[in-house]
Amino acid sequence: MFSAAILGCAGYTGQETLDRLLAHPGLEAVALGSDSLAGHPASALDPRLDGDLPAFVTNAEAADSGSDVIFLCAGHEAAAAFEPPAGAVVVDLSPAHRLRDADTARAWYGRAPGAWSYGLPELWPPDGPLVASPGCYATAALLALGPLAGGLEGAIVDAKSGVSGAGRTLRDSSHAGAVLENLAPYAVGEHRHAPEIAQQLGFDVCFVPHLLPVRRGLLATCYVTFPGDAREVLEAAYASSPVVRVLDEGVAPAIGRVQGTDAAEIAVFTDRATGTTIVVCAIDNLGKGAAGQAVQNANLVLGLDETAGLRLNGVLV
Amino acid sequence: MFSAAILGCAGYTGQETLDRLLAHPGLEAVALGSDSLAGHPASALDPRLDGDLPAFVTNAEAADSGSDVIFLCAGHEAAAAFEPPAGAVVVDLSPAHRLRDADTARAWYGRAPGAWSYGLPELWPPDGPLVASPGCYATAALLALGPLAGGLEGAIVDAKSGVSGAGRTLRDSSHAGAVLENLAPYAVGEHRHAPEIAQQLGFDVCFVPHLLPVRRGLLATCYVTFPGDAREVLEAAYASSPVVRVLDEGVAPAIGRVQGTDAAEIAVFTDRATGTTIVVCAIDNLGKGAAGQAVQNANLVLGLDETAGLRLNGVLV
Amino acid sequence: MFSAAILGCAGYTGQETLDRLLAHPGLEAVALGSDSLAGHPASALDPRLDGDLPAFVTNAEAADSGSDVIFLCAGHEAAAAFEPPAGAVVVDLSPAHRLRDADTARAWYGRAPGAWSYGLPELWPPDGPLVASPGCYATAALLALGPLAGGLEGAIVDAKSGVSGAGRTLRDSSHAGAVLENLAPYAVGEHRHAPEIAQQLGFDVCFVPHLLPVRRGLLATCYVTFPGDAREVLEAAYASSPVVRVLDEGVAPAIGRVQGTDAAEIAVFTDRATGTTIVVCAIDNLGKGAAGQAVQNANLVLGLDETAGLRLNGVLV
Amino acid sequence: MFSAAILGCAGYTGQETLDRLLAHPGLEAVALGSDSLAGHPASALDPRLDGDLPAFVTNAEAADSGSDVIFLCAGHEAAAAFEPPAGAVVVDLSPAHRLRDADTARAWYGRAPGAWSYGLPELWPPDGPLVASPGCYATAALLALGPLAGGLEGAIVDAKSGVSGAGRTLRDSSHAGAVLENLAPYAVGEHRHAPEIAQQLGFDVCFVPHLLPVRRGLLATCYVTFPGDAREVLEAAYASSPVVRVLDEGVAPAIGRVQGTDAAEIAVFTDRATGTTIVVCAIDNLGKGAAGQAVQNANLVLGLDETAGLRLNGVLV
Repeated sequence: MFSAAILGCAGYTGQETLDRLLAHPGLEAVALGSDSLAGHPASALDPRLDGDLPAFVTNAEAADSGSDVIFLCAGHEAAAAFEPPAGAVVVDLSPAHRLRDADTARAWYGRAPGAWSYGLPELWPPDGPLVASPGCYATAALLALGPLAGGLEGAIVDAKSGVSGAGRTLRDSSHAGAVLENLAPYAVGEHRHAPEIAQQLGFDVCFVPHLLPVRRGLLATCYVTFPGDAREVLEAAYASSPVVRVLDEGVAPAIGRVQGTDAAEIAVFTDRATGTTIVVCAIDNLGKGAAGQAVQNANLVLGLDETAGLRLNGVLV
Repeated sequence: MFSAAILGCAGYTGQETLDRLLAHPGLEAVALGSDSLAGHPASALDPRLDGDLPAFVTNAEAADSGSDVIFLCAGHEAAAAFEPPAGAVVVDLSPAHRLRDADTARAWYGRAPGAWSYGLPELWPPDGPLVASPGCYATAALLALGPLAGGLEGAIVDAKSGVSGAGRTLRDSSHAGAVLENLAPYAVGEHRHAPEIAQQLGFDVCFVPHLLPVRRGLLATCYVTFPGDAREVLEAAYASSPVVRVLDEGVAPAIGRVQGTDAAEIAVFTDRATGTTIVVCAIDNLGKGAAGQAVQNANLVLGLDETAGLRLNGVLV
Repeated sequence: MFSAAILGCAGYTGQETLDRLLAHPGLEAVALGSDSLAGHPASALDPRLDGDLPAFVTNAEAADSGSDVIFLCAGHEAAAAFEPPAGAVVVDLSPAHRLRDADTARAWYGRAPGAWSYGLPELWPPDGPLVASPGCYATAALLALGPLAGGLEGAIVDAKSGVSGAGRTLRDSSHAGAVLENLAPYAVGEHRHAPEIAQQLGFDVCFVPHLLPVRRGLLATCYVTFPGDAREVLEAAYASSPVVRVLDEGVAPAIGRVQGTDAAEIAVFTDRATGTTIVVCAIDNLGKGAAGQAVQNANLVLGLDETAGLRLNGVLV
Repeated sequence: MFSAAILGCAGYTGQETLDRLLAHPGLEAVALGSDSLAGHPASALDPRLDGDLPAFVTNAEAADSGSDVIFLCAGHEAAAAFEPPAGAVVVDLSPAHRLRDADTARAWYGRAPGAWSYGLPELWPPDGPLVASPGCYATAALLALGPLAGGLEGAIVDAKSGVSGAGRTLRDSSHAGAVLENLAPYAVGEHRHAPEIAQQLGFDVCFVPHLLPVRRGLLATCYVTFPGDAREVLEAAYASSPVVRVLDEGVAPAIGRVQGTDAAEIAVFTDRATGTTIVVCAIDNLGKGAAGQAVQNANLVLGLDETAGLRLNGVLV
């Protein structure tokens, strides 16, 4: 049994990571870090958490807990400033360590990259103990386009995300009065996830995110000109994946079917009028787009069963 | 005061058309047609409708009411079979008369087109007493792209619509259990609104609609390569429009601000990474996308104030 | 034409009050007060507001604008500290001046009441230029129970409100992630609106509010033992009201039908098993529950048409 | 390993029961009955179901499959007409066998009751192989009030349920256009779940259900006059329950925390003004309110671990 610490455990991705560890046969949460909840019992975060869990400690204390694995569920500034303890596996769920190009990293996050590997298990498994876990938008776009990238010169990615993608922090745009019965694009033409997608694909993409009136879930509709049989390529890429399902012809991905899970759904279509290849990917932004993938990355680095602790089963309506 | 009949008054677009007529200074609803509600008082449709309105009659009776204007809010088969009374203005809200090309019309709707003009007031005002009022998806896409069409060779239109766009008829896909906390594309690569958009723009578009968990409202995100200043063209096109508002730079359209209205919001962006021009349009699918535009078309044909009866004012949160 | 100033115009109730004044034939908004938006054009609040409106000023400046009517859309502390200008009509939408009993007012709001009259037009029309406009929960409960109060000894009021009832201020409980797919009661057994309801009815009520995943709208289900024919009493009470509609037997009020309006729906039922009288009232918390009622109160004090500026027509689906 | 057949597997409760069996260590779904899907593979119901499951058969074939357990997820007419195979455990999720009094059963369901025991495990564990599993509303009301019943003479139960409570069948009231941004009570004063609650409590209750704009989840707010310490009684009743959690003082149940689970949350409050005891219970209508409880009942009858297959863990946000 490996031990794990979660830093930023009171946020959405922290709570979701804890959720996965509660069901994990090989990883045990021994330190719950939260500067705002330090000193309180686990139930202070959620009444479902009970006395078997340790009380919250500060993030610094959690980092010093000597845990085998550290999940960084903090903001990117805190993650960038974090000094990995020697010997520990660290999985960073923030964007701090995702960009490899020094200039790009500085332009978007004000700092140079370090010795972190980008870990999207199905396409780019983590390579070393320091793992930059992909963003939710990048995960969906890359699962859809990564296997096709060699044949592409560009892509349009129209993405739609539930409100939990913006975190638990209070913002005008996350106020339910602004979310319900609404839909709007944001950061149009300049979202910080675009360079992350471009880095992995090898070409620039036009990426536009929209905020959906759903609690969790993300769908990316990707438009490309692909010279081959995209379905064949994608089916081959994910044939043995326990996480990514390529749907039968004519079936479209749906957020409702991946919500609350760490699975992904992908479908491929050809536009009748223009021949455009349309690849659609649905994930849960907090699952495959965050906590589920972080645990999957940790499993791979530690040599555990890749899907241990993940939420992959069930057919809830 | 002109008299008006509504056929298919018990559906969403019929009820919304009636809503506009209730506030119209120059058009009075004198015949409410509904084969399912015939014989019942107006309040059978909605308790807010009271004794000042006539009782429901059959659609055939409403058609024979001698009204100056007939709003066809029925399905496209019924609309296609409809024989316009001599001298009447007829505004068809169904897709039955929108396609001009005989082959295309037959392929999608099983019939040849007739002497109907396509009526999108800001771009193609109705020309004659028989008006085919545009579909909701087409309205949003065309308002966004119509003024730019001369400089375009293609377009990707990623559209998202509230559930009322599919009408009041019961379908699995409109069941709230399938809509809430969900989002999925549908009819990918082969939606019947694509030819309508292509006909008016003069080139094929790749059009993908998605079903949103909102009651009403529609947003189209359009991706094009445009050789000029798209903002300048769009601002000029709608400078004097009381219906379409081109937003200031950096402000994105939002369904929430047009919901329940007959207005449209448009914004233009340039993608930082790829230079793609992104034009976004938000409307209410039942307002500018259906009943509001139908009444606007009727106003133009009758020589009334273009916006009489429309819902254009107010700043509801 | 009377002139009006709105203090706290950037909040939900302020924006809604402005909405009503934009359509008002006898009241013109001449001063838009907001300490956060002072100096900005009206469009800074909402792109739908254009150049015909004055720019925002501070609340103090708005108060000093010499307007005939002042709408206080601020928090209760600011409202309590407000000094009404001589000769002005002031309608306070906050709870600051609603409680008449000095001890109760001090216990809940830390201050004694003043020379303000409670203004619920259908039951207790305002009496003088200083009007305490009722809260949204109180409005629904009182419209349901007020006419029956003489025959009652107590009541249980189970109320459900949309999220806009908590205002535009950011709170954990208003975060969309906490609202969507959720429902929970709050302030159970001790909500500050209970004394307001009790004061007007003359007896204590057991009042429990719940937060609904809807943007706007409020429904109160009231349980009482009433010795007479409650339907008859309520129908008589509202027979001539242009605002309150008592529904036919068997028809239940619905938030969807009053949303975005200043109307109220009431229905009466008798429980088959226990004989309990159930009175249900639906309003829009921002309409009849706030801005609509405030303007209605102002109309009455100024001698204008009671419903001028109100949103009462239409049958939007 | 026991074998199980599900009749009506294509409905909400059938799919949810299958979901529980997929994770069950001691019960295996060997026959999936659905008259509409018979002959199709399991994936026809949901793409997440794959080749390891048997194809759908008719309900009659599923009933004849010789399974150890039969879950009746059909309508109450079909359930009433069902002849239990000798030796089989049958858990009926419909209301057909819940009422013991012949007259009451005939009045509400047109038939006399049989040799079925009512199975609400925490209060009235099943007694024999034929189990009538409680309705969702009854489950919430009874968990809240059952332990207090001896001290009560009546109760008001104001309940709010997500739309899946009405099943997958298409109805006007389940259309998303009627559900979103809406709330309304229904069947006021005469809901068929009221007699079921009354039967178990021993006195009549005033029960009013409301339809919530949420996909799944149910909350019952119960108002009673209780002569003792209700909290103490409820805490004692559920002290050892792995399913029902009595929350700490001041914490209110929330649908969001039980959604997708088979757990229940209960809280007790005393109204400051009137002394009324308020007991609130939240469950998932498809979980503890249907499939979870049905499997829990089957586990008890079969002598398996009571919570095998249930969804009880996790702290999803």
